[in-house]
Amino acid sequence: MPSVSPSLSAAMAQAATAVTETMECILPKSDFAEQKLFDAMRYSVLAGGKRLRPFLLLSTAQIYGVDEDCALRAAAALECVHCYSLVHDDLPAMDDSELRRGQPTTHIRFDEATAILAGDALLTIAFEILSDPRTHEDPKIRCALVASLARASGANGMVGGQMLDLIAEDTNFDIGAITRLQRMKTGELIACATEMGGLLGKASPQHLNALRAYAHDLGLAFQIIDDLLDAEGTAEETGKPVGRDEEAGKATFVTILGHDRARQQAKLLCEQATQHLSLFDGRAKNLEEVARFVVDRKA
Amino acid sequence: MPSVSPSLSAAMAQAATAVTETMECILPKSDFAEQKLFDAMRYSVLAGGKRLRPFLLLSTAQIYGVDEDCALRAAAALECVHCYSLVHDDLPAMDDSELRRGQPTTHIRFDEATAILAGDALLTIAFEILSDPRTHEDPKIRCALVASLARASGANGMVGGQMLDLIAEDTNFDIGAITRLQRMKTGELIACATEMGGLLGKASPQHLNALRAYAHDLGLAFQIIDDLLDAEGTAEETGKPVGRDEEAGKATFVTILGHDRARQQAKLLCEQATQHLSLFDGRAKNLEEVARFVVDRKA
Repeated sequence: MPSVSPSLSAAMAQAATAVTETMECILPKSDFAEQKLFDAMRYSVLAGGKRLRPFLLLSTAQIYGVDEDCALRAAAALECVHCYSLVHDDLPAMDDSELRRGQPTTHIRFDEATAILAGDALLTIAFEILSDPRTHEDPKIRCALVASLARASGANGMVGGQMLDLIAEDTNFDIGAITRLQRMKTGELIACATEMGGLLGKASPQHLNALRAYAHDLGLAFQIIDDLLDAEGTAEETGKPVGRDEEAGKATFVTILGHDRARQQAKLLCEQATQHLSLFDGRAKNLEEVARFVVDRKA
Repeated sequence: MPSVSPSLSAAMAQAATAVTETMECILPKSDFAEQKLFDAMRYSVLAGGKRLRPFLLLSTAQIYGVDEDCALRAAAALECVHCYSLVHDDLPAMDDSELRRGQPTTHIRFDEATAILAGDALLTIAFEILSDPRTHEDPKIRCALVASLARASGANGMVGGQMLDLIAEDTNFDIGAITRLQRMKTGELIACATEMGGLLGKASPQHLNALRAYAHDLGLAFQIIDDLLDAEGTAEETGKPVGRDEEAGKATFVTILGHDRARQQAKLLCEQATQHLSLFDGRAKNLEEVARFVVDRKA
């Protein structure tokens, strides 16, 4: 199996550092009595992670020569939404996870009420960031960014997918239902990453469609690999508890397709993802490489 | 004690109906497996309530002759945020309330996970509504609406105030700290209502300042009366459990000032609120009347 190219890991690490620094700057601190809320917000986003969505956004924005500071602000907003979703997802009433990226989850490190509020505040600040003229000088673009993020993360996107994920524990979902679930739960926000990058660069509708199609294939592949890691990996490798899907008796790509066909399907999806990028004539190198990275990742 | 004027109650009832109908139209339904999420969202906002914030927004927009459909969309977005905050506030990890407006709270009627997600989705859709051209044709105004709502409802506004409210249970807050808490927890969103009305009408900075000052005084008076109702009212009158502040040993305006001085202070604030409206030369009749209603309300 080929390993991730050194240039991609370097680019991803650089982007992760830049977006973390941007969030560090944007996220407010406080000396007031409510300091705990701000601490919990910062804890929830600054802990790390691959920063895949910011990387996709930044890589797409680069194709169009978008100002890097603007793209970083949009990427920070997107990552705030991703992180809030993890905080709420980990809550006792939801997935009840105590570990995330090898660290205590927000409600364990702080408490449940603080975790709920920190998630709410992270979701809210994302839209404050996007509506700010520093994110893009054109208010029409800023509105398009807000609309894109709200649609991707709301009831018809990520939150709807999380609802389906909870329902999946008690329902016998077939492969079609699981594909729809994952498309909503993780796919929409990944597609939003490339869409926001394109919107910042005033991409044509044709480009935006290609970017979305790429990201949806990539997102599905990403999820299949996630399921495989949950089924095959160890907590040390992945930084979070494993084997939880099987424990919950939950249908996943792996339980339905089996390990080999699931991995095959992920590879196929990544090849298909790359094909959507053909109209960029090689100017979307980072996005192409990410499609390879997704299949090979170990965590 | 003077009762609420018939014209104000009629105007408030009419506005409440209009904004409820608007939310009914905007909030998506679903026949898919995630239907429960949509049901919970609708349950959380359509149950009723005074719709005070929408009324303030609509009344302010009227001063500037804003198109009513646009103002109703903005009012619906604002009310979605208010309702989401109630859903999350009622959760077991927060206030642990089983009753709201005489009805089971969302996590009681559905379940905790669904209530968390319904709240998240309501917050998200608010920004989707505001970024939509149907809310205002000028994208600069739409961005200003998004920024206003995000600031008012985030960590430096409502959510920060909720954090303070939780901390208040274990801390001896003085009158200054409680005023700041309430200014953030309820005042900012009430001020946002008049601000959004003004923004829709392209109000001058001077007007926006007056509208915010009015609303902050009104909001504080509203909260003092809330504390009085909690201390003096019955569950039948208020539609929610009473005496909970005292039970929790929480400092409120009433425990610190006493009943009489608290009521006096509320009256004073409402008079002061009305004075901020003097630059409207009588064109803000509804807002003036609301200031009288707030002191006299029984629920």
